[in-house]
Amino acid sequence: GSEEAAPESAPGGEGKYQTLLINNTGGVYNITLNRPTKKNAITVQMYEELILALKEAGEDKSVVLATMTGSGDYYCSGNDLGNFMNITPDKIKEMAVNAGDLLQRFVSAFIDFPKPLIGLINGPAVGVSVTVLGLFDAATFHTPFSALGQSPEGCSSYVFPRLMGAAKASELLLFNKKISAAEAYNRNLITAVIPDDVFVKETQATIQAIAKLPRESMAFSKVLIRSAEKAQLHAVNKEECEVLIGRWQSQECMNAIMSFFTQKTAKL
Amino acid sequence: GSEEAAPESAPGGEGKYQTLLINNTGGVYNITLNRPTKKNAITVQMYEELILALKEAGEDKSVVLATMTGSGDYYCSGNDLGNFMNITPDKIKEMAVNAGDLLQRFVSAFIDFPKPLIGLINGPAVGVSVTVLGLFDAATFHTPFSALGQSPEGCSSYVFPRLMGAAKASELLLFNKKISAAEAYNRNLITAVIPDDVFVKETQATIQAIAKLPRESMAFSKVLIRSAEKAQLHAVNKEECEVLIGRWQSQECMNAIMSFFTQKTAKL
Amino acid sequence: GSEEAAPESAPGGEGKYQTLLINNTGGVYNITLNRPTKKNAITVQMYEELILALKEAGEDKSVVLATMTGSGDYYCSGNDLGNFMNITPDKIKEMAVNAGDLLQRFVSAFIDFPKPLIGLINGPAVGVSVTVLGLFDAATFHTPFSALGQSPEGCSSYVFPRLMGAAKASELLLFNKKISAAEAYNRNLITAVIPDDVFVKETQATIQAIAKLPRESMAFSKVLIRSAEKAQLHAVNKEECEVLIGRWQSQECMNAIMSFFTQKTAKL
Repeated sequence: GSEEAAPESAPGGEGKYQTLLINNTGGVYNITLNRPTKKNAITVQMYEELILALKEAGEDKSVVLATMTGSGDYYCSGNDLGNFMNITPDKIKEMAVNAGDLLQRFVSAFIDFPKPLIGLINGPAVGVSVTVLGLFDAATFHTPFSALGQSPEGCSSYVFPRLMGAAKASELLLFNKKISAAEAYNRNLITAVIPDDVFVKETQATIQAIAKLPRESMAFSKVLIRSAEKAQLHAVNKEECEVLIGRWQSQECMNAIMSFFTQKTAKL
Repeated sequence: GSEEAAPESAPGGEGKYQTLLINNTGGVYNITLNRPTKKNAITVQMYEELILALKEAGEDKSVVLATMTGSGDYYCSGNDLGNFMNITPDKIKEMAVNAGDLLQRFVSAFIDFPKPLIGLINGPAVGVSVTVLGLFDAATFHTPFSALGQSPEGCSSYVFPRLMGAAKASELLLFNKKISAAEAYNRNLITAVIPDDVFVKETQATIQAIAKLPRESMAFSKVLIRSAEKAQLHAVNKEECEVLIGRWQSQECMNAIMSFFTQKTAKL
Repeated sequence: GSEEAAPESAPGGEGKYQTLLINNTGGVYNITLNRPTKKNAITVQMYEELILALKEAGEDKSVVLATMTGSGDYYCSGNDLGNFMNITPDKIKEMAVNAGDLLQRFVSAFIDFPKPLIGLINGPAVGVSVTVLGLFDAATFHTPFSALGQSPEGCSSYVFPRLMGAAKASELLLFNKKISAAEAYNRNLITAVIPDDVFVKETQATIQAIAKLPRESMAFSKVLIRSAEKAQLHAVNKEECEVLIGRWQSQECMNAIMSFFTQKTAKL
């Protein structure tokens, strides 16, 4: 820790979050991804802000539980591929190592979160926003892993086989299969499928009911549930990020990302 | 082991069980919880008798499998909260430690049971009668954990996430969700949903068929299945009981139990 | 490794496989069990050829993925019980030890297979052809374990409880329950149920699509998914085979096999 004074954020914590909306009220810490024009793709800054928000929610004694949702029609389109653009060849390794470190700290924040964490998946979910779902609750999605020439993250290589068996996990993590919300429910990735028109009303009612339950009991129960595999989850997270650091420097991955942007341009 | 002579139980084993009905016949050891006027709530005596019955069934070479059911309309309403009543403040810690030890031995009896154990869940199941279900088979239930300000037991903090994923397990263990028999089937907690009117007939047919299967093969297979995580289950059981010993001495838990009795009275 | 020259197999690898059809083309290594008049029951020779074929497919850099299917109407009727016939009493132990070693090497070949492995289960599947399914993907089956007085193999004592919970796994591994393809899907044993009339067309389309995905990414992802429990799977495989070596020498097992052949004859 540095002993120099850190620059103060604005009073009331405003200014701390540029990419998120935070609403901490009545024991519920609401996190909203707030880049709706970019389908809430996660930039380097947003990763850092999410790590900070989860830390705050975990430490604030008034907080019973946290929720995460997206602004607009999308929940989250995953890692912002702009994070990989405009990198000169001599900087690729540095970029890959830094991105691996950031991802590992991001996923660790979910592994270590000490209170109930509820995903209010308001729209499509892609990539890392899906793979971390095994570390909390949720509602609709698809997964484009292999198509981007990458490999699983968010502890999904470990958690997904435990949710749905290795074969169904491989469909998502190796074979690029897209599944419906109903199928995601059957595969234990999410705990409820809620129609759009009642989504806010129903999820708010659930959250308010949960926020009134004995909070110590919930916290102790969550710690018990997580404790049996916390060490394993951290080891998996580290291994996944190491593999990704290699993948991100591979020709196969670069081709896949180039192809992604080319196709996108071609469609315009 | 003491070398003093133990007092003899009545001939034929009668008198050994006051809270259970035992019927050991044709290779099937039937255990019936027998406090129907109390919805088969488990008293300290009943815990001890269940431990003894499982030990007997495990050691008796004529026994192929054991079953467990409830007398009357209820399967089991869980821990008898009377176990926590009329405790003077200076005795609370002692009560909590003793209750933790008893619960740990009770759950260990299920972990270590060496033969097939089949639950004939004849009616509603609550609390600890649900959380140990992950250690055998079953048919209808709900779970009131968090509402009582307690925390998971019966290895449910470890087994439930492995049956249905952490998120769906959290619904039951943290968020007090009640689920139908059909949903319990989908979540791998039970192996069949059987209508009331054919319940006895169908379950008896199944049990008789199983009792005729090669018994050594079944015993070896059960040992193989259990062995991979027996040490882990015992560690989880110990950790859960330690957390509960703390919970039972907490203000939050006492308030929840008081509230439970007050509401019950208010309804009368 | 011997330094003596091994007898050459015929050019082009023909002659290497008498019980399998191998078709290695376009990155897809197809293995077909080819004893249709015996419902593709697995002889000692077929075990050895399957081990060899998986080794080849794993090492051949042109191979992206492997598939396994059966010739004729059956997928596989499991271990050829003829392997246990015509054994004189003094040779029973030797037979059991050799069969245990062979089975352990066979299952290891699945545990260690480094690429996607897709089962095209074209008809009924029995015994060891079911228990190894937890190590890849599939379509219809039943399981006759206990009825043969044996015990689980193929890592099923470990993998099946993780696919469907211990109770539902016990139905298959202890209680000889037969389940439908739909139920096998719900229990995470297989990833798709496909009608007969479109089976070949649909599975070929899926395989061709998978063969075009980024192959390095798939291989790294499979390694990640498998790595978390590879050591455990090998330990389970070893333990299961040790138990089976004992079972195969037991009176109960011999009676069950005799009864199987007697019933078969009686039906003729």
